[in-house]
Amino acid sequence: MAGDGNTRVPHEKLFAFCRDCFLKVGVRPEDAEITADNLLFANLRGIDSHGVVRMRIYAERLRAGSTKAQTRIEIVQETAASALIDAHSGVGQVAGREAMKLAIRKASQSGMGWVGVRNSSHYGAAAYYAMMALEEKMIGIALTNAGPSMAPSGGREPRLGNNPVAIAVPAGRYPPLVLDMATGAVAWGKIYLAQQEKKKIPTSWALDKEGVPTDDPDAAVQGGLIQPVGGYKGYGLSLMIDVLTGVLCGSGFSTFINHMYKHPDKPTLLAHACAALPVESFMPFPEFCSRIDQVITLMRSCPIAAGVDRIYVPGEIEYETERERRTNGIPLGPNLTEDLRSLGAELGVTF
Amino acid sequence: MAGDGNTRVPHEKLFAFCRDCFLKVGVRPEDAEITADNLLFANLRGIDSHGVVRMRIYAERLRAGSTKAQTRIEIVQETAASALIDAHSGVGQVAGREAMKLAIRKASQSGMGWVGVRNSSHYGAAAYYAMMALEEKMIGIALTNAGPSMAPSGGREPRLGNNPVAIAVPAGRYPPLVLDMATGAVAWGKIYLAQQEKKKIPTSWALDKEGVPTDDPDAAVQGGLIQPVGGYKGYGLSLMIDVLTGVLCGSGFSTFINHMYKHPDKPTLLAHACAALPVESFMPFPEFCSRIDQVITLMRSCPIAAGVDRIYVPGEIEYETERERRTNGIPLGPNLTEDLRSLGAELGVTF
Repeated sequence: MAGDGNTRVPHEKLFAFCRDCFLKVGVRPEDAEITADNLLFANLRGIDSHGVVRMRIYAERLRAGSTKAQTRIEIVQETAASALIDAHSGVGQVAGREAMKLAIRKASQSGMGWVGVRNSSHYGAAAYYAMMALEEKMIGIALTNAGPSMAPSGGREPRLGNNPVAIAVPAGRYPPLVLDMATGAVAWGKIYLAQQEKKKIPTSWALDKEGVPTDDPDAAVQGGLIQPVGGYKGYGLSLMIDVLTGVLCGSGFSTFINHMYKHPDKPTLLAHACAALPVESFMPFPEFCSRIDQVITLMRSCPIAAGVDRIYVPGEIEYETERERRTNGIPLGPNLTEDLRSLGAELGVTF
Repeated sequence: MAGDGNTRVPHEKLFAFCRDCFLKVGVRPEDAEITADNLLFANLRGIDSHGVVRMRIYAERLRAGSTKAQTRIEIVQETAASALIDAHSGVGQVAGREAMKLAIRKASQSGMGWVGVRNSSHYGAAAYYAMMALEEKMIGIALTNAGPSMAPSGGREPRLGNNPVAIAVPAGRYPPLVLDMATGAVAWGKIYLAQQEKKKIPTSWALDKEGVPTDDPDAAVQGGLIQPVGGYKGYGLSLMIDVLTGVLCGSGFSTFINHMYKHPDKPTLLAHACAALPVESFMPFPEFCSRIDQVITLMRSCPIAAGVDRIYVPGEIEYETERERRTNGIPLGPNLTEDLRSLGAELGVTF
């Protein structure tokens, strides 16, 4: 990372900065810590798109009141194994964490837990919530919908979010398996990169403004859209995530979600779902861990393709990035550094 | 379909033929009906890969005893919301159906149900089980693992099945939303077709025998593999389905699954998971149905891309195919017709 124009900032320092910013805009101390922790979780794991780069929009929305600084968590409806939470437009991270805590409690009592959240806000990296289940010897699943950015297959206007699914699974001697994937084919960042490098892109990545698959990154950027991953499969998954979150929870869905950046003055109406599945509902925990280690070994030991160095399992790259960044700090580019500094100046928080 | 060499056979006739074949190899009457019903469900919906084309291998395995004709369903472990079933190498369809029935019962009592199945066999189209939840006003989810056929990203030997996920959601004035997708990029049939037509294939479909993505269908067929859909995303999903079924249920997983065709004398050790989520754990059913109708309308009314006729929602094409085939019969090619006729002759069942 040396010589790339980035400076390295210790994660503790960035955490304290974010927490103090949240405090300044009226978030309760415990909630400020949770939200800052979620942002730094993403930066530590190399998911910089969901890290401190979101600090400014979060602060602006909290100041505008479109995200309520004082999060009120209301359990609207519950059964032995399920619950529905209304977050009343509060902080998404607080809502997501309460939802997974409740799913874990339901799972401890009933063998399985599923909790939905309505009227929430952007909640950062979904893996954060799925991974809360790990120390409870459970498999965690986290879903959320997102502002409309993809078209259904055959369409050319945004009707679905790049809705992610995260699944976290405890392991034995290996780090846990953690899948956290959006249902879009690719992140915009990769298209911008191809544009800069004047390279073609695979036709499965983006649509031009007529809705036609394109290999030209310029055509994608000029009024085009990201395609769902694998065409109708990603479309189907994204739609089902919207159904299991927004539609089922009585929250925003499809075009009834307000985009966080495009409508900073309106509640997003986002919805989430968290599920916890206790391993011991199925087998003794040590036996499970050893079976997970076995499946990880089977993946890693697969003969590799020509030109490939090694095989990773889901969450492994993020785990290695986190180890490195805990030691060496979070890389911040000059623009982001300046943005955080000016935000700090506005709020009276030293960066 | 006229002039394509296919004959049309009424589905009732094919159902009776399959049922009678199952009876002849020792399957109990009720189980024979369920299994035949599952095969015809697939044919009616146009998923011919999971229909009567499987009749011969099922019959051969039942005669060999690698699938036990007398299915014994044992509940090994249960909680208020979950259960683990051992199918003792019985008929997959019988196991899958009992699992979803139990998931629905758990869901009715506890607000959510999740049932795993170990030591099962190939269970046909997963949507069959997910859709059982619909009439109970529930969302149904069905997962299964499958014989190893895909490599993890970067690998070149089979370590994971083309594991599917099916999700069924009740609607109001529209047919239900039904997603049933495998985690592979494409079905082999499409590659064979490109080979016949001497066309290139997208490089995201298949690997050559060195594990390198190829656009040459011949290279794919000569020792290559199907790629997971969307690269590491499909790999991650397939692995997580294997974890939630085979690993968690104490059954076969990855290379510990015996391929149905390659090892006709061995139990497959396949595993499934069925989940049922009652809509009324979250909102009144009529309100939900009207919201689902709304989201379906939003998809269908999306402005269409250049060159596209219309937008479909998951399960819609299958629904339309079923209506047509219920009237006009199931199309059977000459090879399959001959195969069924000779199987019937072996078993003493008139085709």
